[in-house]
Amino acid sequence: MADLKDCLFLKNLRGEPTDRTPIWVMRQAGRYLPEYMEVRSKISFNDLCRTPEAACEVTVQPIRRFGFDAAIMFSDILTPLEAMGAPFDFSHGGPKLERPLRDERDIRSLERYPSLEGVPYVAEAIRLMKKEFGDRTPLIGFAGSPFTLASYLIEGGGSKEYEHLKAMLYSRPELLQELLDLLGDQVLDYLLMQVEAGVDAVQLFDTWGGILHPADYEAMVLPVVRRILDGLKHTGVPRIYFLKGSAPYNHLVSTLDCECFGVDWTQDLTRAIAQLPGRCVQGNLDPLVLYGSPEQVRRRALEICRQGEAAPGHVFNLGHGILPKAPIPAVETLVRTVQEFRRGH
Amino acid sequence: MADLKDCLFLKNLRGEPTDRTPIWVMRQAGRYLPEYMEVRSKISFNDLCRTPEAACEVTVQPIRRFGFDAAIMFSDILTPLEAMGAPFDFSHGGPKLERPLRDERDIRSLERYPSLEGVPYVAEAIRLMKKEFGDRTPLIGFAGSPFTLASYLIEGGGSKEYEHLKAMLYSRPELLQELLDLLGDQVLDYLLMQVEAGVDAVQLFDTWGGILHPADYEAMVLPVVRRILDGLKHTGVPRIYFLKGSAPYNHLVSTLDCECFGVDWTQDLTRAIAQLPGRCVQGNLDPLVLYGSPEQVRRRALEICRQGEAAPGHVFNLGHGILPKAPIPAVETLVRTVQEFRRGH
Repeated sequence: MADLKDCLFLKNLRGEPTDRTPIWVMRQAGRYLPEYMEVRSKISFNDLCRTPEAACEVTVQPIRRFGFDAAIMFSDILTPLEAMGAPFDFSHGGPKLERPLRDERDIRSLERYPSLEGVPYVAEAIRLMKKEFGDRTPLIGFAGSPFTLASYLIEGGGSKEYEHLKAMLYSRPELLQELLDLLGDQVLDYLLMQVEAGVDAVQLFDTWGGILHPADYEAMVLPVVRRILDGLKHTGVPRIYFLKGSAPYNHLVSTLDCECFGVDWTQDLTRAIAQLPGRCVQGNLDPLVLYGSPEQVRRRALEICRQGEAAPGHVFNLGHGILPKAPIPAVETLVRTVQEFRRGH
Repeated sequence: MADLKDCLFLKNLRGEPTDRTPIWVMRQAGRYLPEYMEVRSKISFNDLCRTPEAACEVTVQPIRRFGFDAAIMFSDILTPLEAMGAPFDFSHGGPKLERPLRDERDIRSLERYPSLEGVPYVAEAIRLMKKEFGDRTPLIGFAGSPFTLASYLIEGGGSKEYEHLKAMLYSRPELLQELLDLLGDQVLDYLLMQVEAGVDAVQLFDTWGGILHPADYEAMVLPVVRRILDGLKHTGVPRIYFLKGSAPYNHLVSTLDCECFGVDWTQDLTRAIAQLPGRCVQGNLDPLVLYGSPEQVRRRALEICRQGEAAPGHVFNLGHGILPKAPIPAVETLVRTVQEFRRGH
């Protein structure tokens, strides 16, 4: 390829016709890869996120092995929170925050940091990755959405019922709004920094689908997501918004200004495309299909490729991150199936 | 009330006009109630499900305390599986099955039992409850849907990713179908037995919302749910189908023949009513709202009551089971708010 701008992935995000569907998978640099586990045997998850050379190596691994059509920088959605004075500890399984945020004092103790200073290793890693990929593979930057970050900050880690987050929402919504606004500023700065460092596209991850009433999503979450997406528009870098479990909110999500919407596997892609008119879509294979037979992987991947032709652009992906036990041969079958599919036939 | 048939709950399920909205809450006989905990301090969960007098006592408790407009028999969705040779152990937190079902031998080892013989204590408990309630409070019977039961049988307990269930779905769908059909026969028999024993309405619980692609839901789950609902029609007892996370499937769900659909809180009730035309709806307050301020409980409950007026009938409920830490005063506020709401004003 002469120019990265003409790659399949970016052309699809711009809605330009291509003869095949690009593919990458969420969490593609991860535990299902033996070479990733090899790196992790020598370095903690936390240090991996903060060491540009190592982060670059694991970002390149899945491209090297499978030839995915896009790379996503290795990092964690919680990484930028460390620079805000809320470092998560990953050493005991899931992420853990020593002092979860519960009141205004906690929230106001969070530090804002100027765009590049708080997490210098992220920009450095992006520059290394761009150098490594050259004009061959586009690089995706990302951030967690303010609401997803807020849920970790308030719960102090992962959660099943989101008790503390919801207690705040349903008793002190103005306080939650203050936190979301603060995180919104930070996330926008963080993504602008990534663009400046060289990423070719950005994805905003909202992984908490199905926990809010649509009216609350509309009042509390949608405005801050809109502000972030709007704040990135002038950069010209394509913006992907992935809201897991978005089916009940598609009519709201569709009002956002961005190039592409991630779609999870609980939605029929044809219906989602109709509900998100004029946009590129990304998705939407159930990650667990990779545990099934090769026939099922092929049949379901092809069905999604065909459905995706109805959108201005389609980037093949899983409907959520790939799981640690996903078998390598299944990923190979998936990539081959999607890359061999010819559009318009 | 002269006749139970004229109670608010059943009139709403029949789509007859009433001047106020009936309320009950899922898992209302449960751990948030001190008097329930008192009973549980003397008897295990398993024995409670199998002892008619004790099951009757905890079924009556929430009616006595809050004056809910309907009672639901105390039991567990896994109770009937014991009679099929798959007893779950509840003594270590969540339910656990010693030998999860993984292949055809496992599945074919399940025993079918004639309608009343396998779980005689359930019919006996229903007769006691009916005697206790007389013409004052309608009694709801229930069962877990075949798919929900299958997920417990295959995973051997609760699950986050449903790895084994999905591995079967995506590699041996015909085997999963065989299990679903078997469970469908059993669930229908089980509910017919409850009707015979005297319940005034039945609810089918599908709590695994958001794990299937709509095409799989349509092919594997919808037909067996339809068979159960159709098989109950001749009894004249109102049928409620609660599919948690139903938003992506409402266009499929709406083809089922039943009187009422349960709606969870991730959906706007007004939109759900439009997608489920001509049916009564039940729902849809987020159980976590009870952790919030009394103002929020009142405001949100009233909003739902108002939205519910657009359906032929509306039964107020939470969007999922009440949580163990729900404060009693919040439940009191909720019941008072709903019962004081006057329709058409």
